Amino acid sequence: MKRDGILVVISGPSGSGKGSVISKLEVFNGVAVSVSATTRKPRDFERDGVDYFFISREKFKELIEKNDMVEYNEYCGNLYGTIKSELKKLLKENETVILEIDVNGAFLIAKNFSCVRVFLLPPSFEELKKRLCKRGTETKEVVEKRLEEAKNEIKRIYEYDYLVINDDIEKAVEKIRIISKAESLKVERAKGELDRFFKYNF
Amino acid sequence: MKRDGILVVISGPSGSGKGSVISKLEVFNGVAVSVSATTRKPRDFERDGVDYFFISREKFKELIEKNDMVEYNEYCGNLYGTIKSELKKLLKENETVILEIDVNGAFLIAKNFSCVRVFLLPPSFEELKKRLCKRGTETKEVVEKRLEEAKNEIKRIYEYDYLVINDDIEKAVEKIRIISKAESLKVERAKGELDRFFKYNF
Repeated sequence: MKRDGILVVISGPSGSGKGSVISKLEVFNGVAVSVSATTRKPRDFERDGVDYFFISREKFKELIEKNDMVEYNEYCGNLYGTIKSELKKLLKENETVILEIDVNGAFLIAKNFSCVRVFLLPPSFEELKKRLCKRGTETKEVVEKRLEEAKNEIKRIYEYDYLVINDDIEKAVEKIRIISKAESLKVERAKGELDRFFKYNF
Repeated sequence: MKRDGILVVISGPSGSGKGSVISKLEVFNGVAVSVSATTRKPRDFERDGVDYFFISREKFKELIEKNDMVEYNEYCGNLYGTIKSELKKLLKENETVILEIDVNGAFLIAKNFSCVRVFLLPPSFEELKKRLCKRGTETKEVVEKRLEEAKNEIKRIYEYDYLVINDDIEKAVEKIRIISKAESLKVERAKGELDRFFKYNF
């Protein structure tokens, strides 16, 4: 009997480098990244089932009614969510499944799934500001709003299990790998094997 | 402010290979092994403060009264225990402190110290039997008694956080290193830093 993979839920404010860290994690064997569903239209370069599952609002509502949405959210008039059956499938097929999500989503996922919650932070608040400004594409108002949002996210850090400071992307990736490996050694994850061990030897 | 090290409590039945694993862990930088105190006489090759703190029964009782024994035990007429102040000192000076102890001791340590409990198991019960017989120095009765003791220890595995199967000593050592590293990333361990982060930026 193969065990399910470890679900690693990653949150962090805009500017924490979640995207870069996750794209580096994804290349490892046995690691998969959960794909969200959305009702928004795909952009030119986006592929269905890779960037998102692009589905209609009707389909999305149907999944909610079938209790197949672990969590969902409306943003700028579009629905975004995590499909439970897809997540379960990924956990059956992989050692580690990465799910990037905001603090509210992480809270809802943890209610439904055994998971490890990792919060990613930039090395300092100054660095966070710098990273948000550096993008250069945002107006001052947008940067200020992002910083305010970042503060509100960071306030909920104590809901998380692990904190990874992203001062060096390779090190941050390695730390998340270590967290996932350690979690796979938890006694509670070996319950099935241990119960059989007791049955045959005790 | 430097953080205290991670206390890794290791238990496992006789034949699980605790001794070999710990002596390989000990050579890493930042890793120290907690030394027990005992009232028994040192054997020829044993050094005070390395193999044990060899102390008198009076001194031992004094430490108990001063509440400086985290746990202790009488075995074949000799007292064995863990000195709290020594353990605290090691935790100040090292990243990881290893403490080998039986299931009862582990239970008591965990009441007093923030720690990670690791249970070491041989790959199978047959292998455990084989390892206990291989020593060759024990009579059949002693081996049977050890097996019974092993069963009683293994029954309490669910009190532990992590399970490490010792099918390959190098891999078992690496797994314990990973557990210690992951534990150092726990949000609760960063509380001091996070509180300061909040104070200055929020």
